[in-house]
Amino acid sequence: MTLRTGAIVQALGGELFGDADRLITRLAPLESAQPSELSFLVNPRLTQVLAGSQAGCVIVGAAMAEAARARGDCIVADNPHLYFARVTQMWKRLHGGAARRGVHPSAVVQEGAFVHPTASVGALCFVGRGARIGEDTLVKERVTIGEDCVIGARCVIQSGAVIGGDGFGFAPHEGAWEKIEQLGAVRIGDDVEIGANTCIDRGALDDTVIEDGVKLDNLIQIGHNCHIGQHTAMAGCVGVAGSARIGAYCTVGGAGMIAGHLTIADHVHVSAASFVTRSILKPGHYTGFFPIAENREWEKNAATLKQIHRLRDRIKHLEQMLPEQDQE
Amino acid sequence: MTLRTGAIVQALGGELFGDADRLITRLAPLESAQPSELSFLVNPRLTQVLAGSQAGCVIVGAAMAEAARARGDCIVADNPHLYFARVTQMWKRLHGGAARRGVHPSAVVQEGAFVHPTASVGALCFVGRGARIGEDTLVKERVTIGEDCVIGARCVIQSGAVIGGDGFGFAPHEGAWEKIEQLGAVRIGDDVEIGANTCIDRGALDDTVIEDGVKLDNLIQIGHNCHIGQHTAMAGCVGVAGSARIGAYCTVGGAGMIAGHLTIADHVHVSAASFVTRSILKPGHYTGFFPIAENREWEKNAATLKQIHRLRDRIKHLEQMLPEQDQE
Amino acid sequence: MTLRTGAIVQALGGELFGDADRLITRLAPLESAQPSELSFLVNPRLTQVLAGSQAGCVIVGAAMAEAARARGDCIVADNPHLYFARVTQMWKRLHGGAARRGVHPSAVVQEGAFVHPTASVGALCFVGRGARIGEDTLVKERVTIGEDCVIGARCVIQSGAVIGGDGFGFAPHEGAWEKIEQLGAVRIGDDVEIGANTCIDRGALDDTVIEDGVKLDNLIQIGHNCHIGQHTAMAGCVGVAGSARIGAYCTVGGAGMIAGHLTIADHVHVSAASFVTRSILKPGHYTGFFPIAENREWEKNAATLKQIHRLRDRIKHLEQMLPEQDQE
Repeated sequence: MTLRTGAIVQALGGELFGDADRLITRLAPLESAQPSELSFLVNPRLTQVLAGSQAGCVIVGAAMAEAARARGDCIVADNPHLYFARVTQMWKRLHGGAARRGVHPSAVVQEGAFVHPTASVGALCFVGRGARIGEDTLVKERVTIGEDCVIGARCVIQSGAVIGGDGFGFAPHEGAWEKIEQLGAVRIGDDVEIGANTCIDRGALDDTVIEDGVKLDNLIQIGHNCHIGQHTAMAGCVGVAGSARIGAYCTVGGAGMIAGHLTIADHVHVSAASFVTRSILKPGHYTGFFPIAENREWEKNAATLKQIHRLRDRIKHLEQMLPEQDQE
Repeated sequence: MTLRTGAIVQALGGELFGDADRLITRLAPLESAQPSELSFLVNPRLTQVLAGSQAGCVIVGAAMAEAARARGDCIVADNPHLYFARVTQMWKRLHGGAARRGVHPSAVVQEGAFVHPTASVGALCFVGRGARIGEDTLVKERVTIGEDCVIGARCVIQSGAVIGGDGFGFAPHEGAWEKIEQLGAVRIGDDVEIGANTCIDRGALDDTVIEDGVKLDNLIQIGHNCHIGQHTAMAGCVGVAGSARIGAYCTVGGAGMIAGHLTIADHVHVSAASFVTRSILKPGHYTGFFPIAENREWEKNAATLKQIHRLRDRIKHLEQMLPEQDQE
Repeated sequence: MTLRTGAIVQALGGELFGDADRLITRLAPLESAQPSELSFLVNPRLTQVLAGSQAGCVIVGAAMAEAARARGDCIVADNPHLYFARVTQMWKRLHGGAARRGVHPSAVVQEGAFVHPTASVGALCFVGRGARIGEDTLVKERVTIGEDCVIGARCVIQSGAVIGGDGFGFAPHEGAWEKIEQLGAVRIGDDVEIGANTCIDRGALDDTVIEDGVKLDNLIQIGHNCHIGQHTAMAGCVGVAGSARIGAYCTVGGAGMIAGHLTIADHVHVSAASFVTRSILKPGHYTGFFPIAENREWEKNAATLKQIHRLRDRIKHLEQMLPEQDQE
């Protein structure tokens, strides 16, 4: 499997400095790339790595063009990260052979489900009746798409994902829990990616909605009735409780948690391991986790933390004992 | 798919004020319900929403009856939340057609497993030898029920759940880990719900036990030898480490964590994102997570937190410098 | 299913004190073991339990030999925990009948995948083309082994695991995310255990690597390009973000989180529920979580915590007001 640099530039644009006939055998990280390999540089802090790289050719932005040309062959692109993404797509297309299409014979697609002829449903998937899978969508192996759930076009659903499990709804009754049947479904827009073993619950009455371009990593839990705005991205192990309404262009770091029934504005960024317990109506970057330390240090701090409001009282008391000096 | 309000009251009781022939086409939230839709009101803080709702009929409790009747048709029930749950069940029963029963042909049920004739085992499930699945239990698609694991009556197991994976048991030996084969199984009572992709490990020697009426949401991990008391409910992403013994009527919020070998009393409520590191023998509500803030604010607080025990020392020192004044 | 104590010692060594013909019908915990059952004692704090145990025979270390002999039959072993592990393996071997080998007919193994003849691939698994599964490896039910992923010898992969899902890689472009195709694979060494519903993503360019002897519990997320050193063990619900490089002989407690692109030295131990945000180059024990408390207490502390850096300023101010006294 090889590709000439000239063919890449012909397909994807950008300006090639160097040999258009150079044969690329692999895409590789800058540090380890060999003379027959193509690499890329996005982070300007890695300029030093560039100088020492043995890559046959490097994709860079305009700002790096001079440094890259001094080193050897390069492709200069407006957005080298995007350009690199497109090269991986081109590589995959050529390497992976013809795109898989259609339903694998081991998949179970119930009567009344619709799978677009250009979509692919992998081995051992289950697609419930009334479900719809859009154009060019790729459902990998061992995925569940529940009854009446709708997946848009050009989505990718990774292995083990469960779309349309029942939401967690129960009415308390004499100490026990009475099931509230979940009568809504899940509606997923276009260009959405859902990670491996991620779960998106169906709504109780209305649908759970994932808008266009949302990207969810692995092992994420999205509760019933949530609404996630377009192009929001969440890293692995995130949990979103029921009826949360998350805006567009947000990001949630790994293992971030969003409580139920909240509203999160567009362009909110939640740090990893942080728990959002109230609505956030102002775009920005929010964080809340206990900083890690050597265990002994942590133990001392945690012990003091437990009496922190008493510390505050002691400070207050000290301040009251020195009232005059403040005015000196 | 429709239902008349009169038929609902006839089946489930409660008092109908209004037109018994009203045709209900859907159950809907109070805010968005249309004149042909049935809604419900549980939270008294939503009384204002009630007044403006266009729902054809609303289920309410006695306290709300007057306000509801002033608005339009309503069903007054002792416990409107429970009543609503039962309406969803009625709707599901009618809408979903005859209950699925029996084993889907794509499921793999090993010899020596027992599936009750009224139970349902969905597509692409695996049921190991010696496993038993009780009356009217619904095992959805792509579920694993391991060897010798027992599921009671009227349970619901959501897609992707793994009941009876090996517990995480290893003996350290010269820096490496020697597997302790997990010889116990999992025993699940009646009326239990297990969420999508949730894992319940088999016991090392004795069984892991989930008592009647327990409700577990998605992506929960229950370690080997745990014992979870009846009607305890856990939200998504919770983790319970091995040999924890959790009482009855407890709740654990999303991503709550319970350390191993602990005892938790009945009626203990653990907040979301809180980590229980010691036994809790007193009923109550327990919490422990770092409050979220704007990232810059958090950074300042986190930095100070790391030296909080030094702050305590400085306060102590200040107090010692002002010993007399305390006695003035 | 029974085993005589004499046969155990003959197979596994150790010194038997007592009846070599004693019939063992089950392995059981010390507290509940019956006269026909074999138990073991590892934790010296449980010596009191030993005295009261009704176990037919108990495996102990040399330090406990006297106390154990005073009680009744015992097997004295150099490492009683390891010895017990081996007894469970012996038990499983005898109890479980002949080891399962080969590919279950319901599994989907693509052309070009290689499964070693002594390996086992369970029901409803998917093995992608180019994947390789080594000698004596046991792949349980409903597992995904993606294209080109390699699993070593004597591994155990629990049900629902997904090896080789796409890494979470996207290039930002005009507010949306452009997929970076993940061209690497996953390489897993020998003697590795992977828990139920755990996910290990394929690398973006190079492979994600799990070295020999690593043990991963359930519902763990390992991001693309990670490298996990030999004999490192992680408990349930752990998340490791992309490109983290974790050393050998480490442990991560349940729900611990490791940020991306970090380096963790060998012999680092991360407590449960702790979030590692920076590289750790020094072996040791690291912790960072908010201690749990009664909710009311926590609320007070959390409120104060939010202004902790202001407390520090107030202390500083108090100290400045008493400058002379420090020198007295």
